[in-house]
Amino acid sequence: MNTTALIMAGGRGERFWPRSRRNLPKQFLSLTDDGKTMIQLTVERILPLVKMEDIYIATNKNYRDLVRSQLPEIPEENILCEPVGRNTAPCIGLGAAHIGKKYEDALMLVLPSDHLIKFNNMFLSALRAACQVAGEGDNLVTLGITPTYPETGYGYIKFNPHATLGAAYEVERFVEKPTLEVAKEYLETEEYLWNSGMFIWKLSSIWKNLGKYMPETCSRLKTIAAAIGTPEEETVLEREFAAMPSVSIDYGIMEKAEHIYTIPGTFGWDDVGSWLAVERIKKTNEDGNVVNGNVITIDTHNCIIQGKGKLIASVGLRDLIIVDTDDAILICEKHKAGDIRKVTENLKICNRDEYL
Amino acid sequence: MNTTALIMAGGRGERFWPRSRRNLPKQFLSLTDDGKTMIQLTVERILPLVKMEDIYIATNKNYRDLVRSQLPEIPEENILCEPVGRNTAPCIGLGAAHIGKKYEDALMLVLPSDHLIKFNNMFLSALRAACQVAGEGDNLVTLGITPTYPETGYGYIKFNPHATLGAAYEVERFVEKPTLEVAKEYLETEEYLWNSGMFIWKLSSIWKNLGKYMPETCSRLKTIAAAIGTPEEETVLEREFAAMPSVSIDYGIMEKAEHIYTIPGTFGWDDVGSWLAVERIKKTNEDGNVVNGNVITIDTHNCIIQGKGKLIASVGLRDLIIVDTDDAILICEKHKAGDIRKVTENLKICNRDEYL
Repeated sequence: MNTTALIMAGGRGERFWPRSRRNLPKQFLSLTDDGKTMIQLTVERILPLVKMEDIYIATNKNYRDLVRSQLPEIPEENILCEPVGRNTAPCIGLGAAHIGKKYEDALMLVLPSDHLIKFNNMFLSALRAACQVAGEGDNLVTLGITPTYPETGYGYIKFNPHATLGAAYEVERFVEKPTLEVAKEYLETEEYLWNSGMFIWKLSSIWKNLGKYMPETCSRLKTIAAAIGTPEEETVLEREFAAMPSVSIDYGIMEKAEHIYTIPGTFGWDDVGSWLAVERIKKTNEDGNVVNGNVITIDTHNCIIQGKGKLIASVGLRDLIIVDTDDAILICEKHKAGDIRKVTENLKICNRDEYL
Repeated sequence: MNTTALIMAGGRGERFWPRSRRNLPKQFLSLTDDGKTMIQLTVERILPLVKMEDIYIATNKNYRDLVRSQLPEIPEENILCEPVGRNTAPCIGLGAAHIGKKYEDALMLVLPSDHLIKFNNMFLSALRAACQVAGEGDNLVTLGITPTYPETGYGYIKFNPHATLGAAYEVERFVEKPTLEVAKEYLETEEYLWNSGMFIWKLSSIWKNLGKYMPETCSRLKTIAAAIGTPEEETVLEREFAAMPSVSIDYGIMEKAEHIYTIPGTFGWDDVGSWLAVERIKKTNEDGNVVNGNVITIDTHNCIIQGKGKLIASVGLRDLIIVDTDDAILICEKHKAGDIRKVTENLKICNRDEYL
């Protein structure tokens, strides 16, 4: 059976402001030292498993040109534009509809475009194991990340350590972001994994579950699928897609369906959720700083400083994030990184779109 | 007797880096909301007492054009350029030599060009009182600032509260920058003033004391004076000035001479010694911030933020100094403002003159 992939690249994350902007979200930024963008790395990573022409990118119209310029090897017809954002279930369904025009059935990897993975070979091993499990029956497989600390910003997957299928464990349930107390308990039981949002299944399996748990959405997706390649394709897509409710695949199917399996992984996954991730990704110097660009640090420790051409001089600083761009500079206390969105909210309210 | 003034504007202060540069030191910057530079304010302040054509500016060649453009009303021949920096005694002597070509004797105010004074009328009253005392005998008068807190960064003047002459007190001695302990004692005795570096005397008085306490320098200054207006003026100045030792007027004369008086003042004097002064000069907002330019502050308190065109967004900050310029940005913990010179030292070592 052919292995295909749908890479989801419609996100508009604001947590990397001022480097990320409305017209340049995180997945199109390079945050690693190799200069490659997140989406380029995502594609490159799976090439040993999926042929370039079997990789599909789901995004929206505004980012179509970015995808084309950053991924010129992806066939143009594989760039799927959602007319409006409707969360992951409709997005994945759109991918399934297009892939279904090429293959009667196929394995389908579903991957976010803005995560980083340090150990590619381990990741590929996990994917191969997942493909094996997903190839049987109508199993839905998700990659779970073995937690290393009690993170409260992720959802968790509770698996049954006694119910295995190959390298996979049966999923008992998906749980929302926990409190710190609860996250600590999860960590101790060793029966919880972080929900990475990476899925593997056959087209036939996901269609079956869409039909069962999201029948209206499924029917609209089939209408869209039938119109692909016809003169009505665009019109039908816009009408049907907008009519679907905004539902995540987790909520719409994974939390309800049967035959859900997870492959635990420890492949250096990072969701790169905020500027703080830069400390994990890049090497810190002897003062604990991560410094890029034209920077002089005096008595400065544990800071993330991302310069551009302009000289940045820091004196006596601790635990700050400093990011310079052509038109804006951010200075943020590390533990307040979550409040960066208050800046973008302020910019929205004041109609200062040039900075968004 | 005519009242003249010598404004000393040769300083190359680095404490306002990155706004102050080698080719734009502090006295040529505007740090107040009125947009006037420090040297412009210094001239404006004394105009009720001194005619424009009797104001002399001592600076160096590099700043001659800055002086001319910022003070176009000052006669060009009143801009005196020191060939090399030799501290305040030779500088003041050069001023006295030039003023002596115009007036046989005159009162001479000696003023730094980079201090701020909030209450001009009180300052003028103090100067008038000082002129009266300086007009008698060969008295040397200095303006002392009534200390408001135990500052350790200034020299102090010990006066005799029982020996008065008009509004002035006899000076017992000048003392170096004290420790905090000692500064606290000074404050309690109420017999110490801050040494402001502002002096008032007659030409004849300062010449007499130069002759007595700095005879070699005095003789070289007289050689310079004799050459003024001759074709050899430039050559003589360069030769004689370079040959003088580098000595401050405090050390060379004030600490040794007799008939030293001080007028205590409380006219809102500020030596604007570092970026921290901006908090004293400008209004802080309800969060304790002093903000200029294109700035968004989120949960930011007691910060000094001096922007230019670029948007500065601050999140979760406390007690920082942030200064943006066209080619460099400084982020400095307030209590480490003294370490800003470590940045400029680093730039010097690395030959990055473009930032100095």
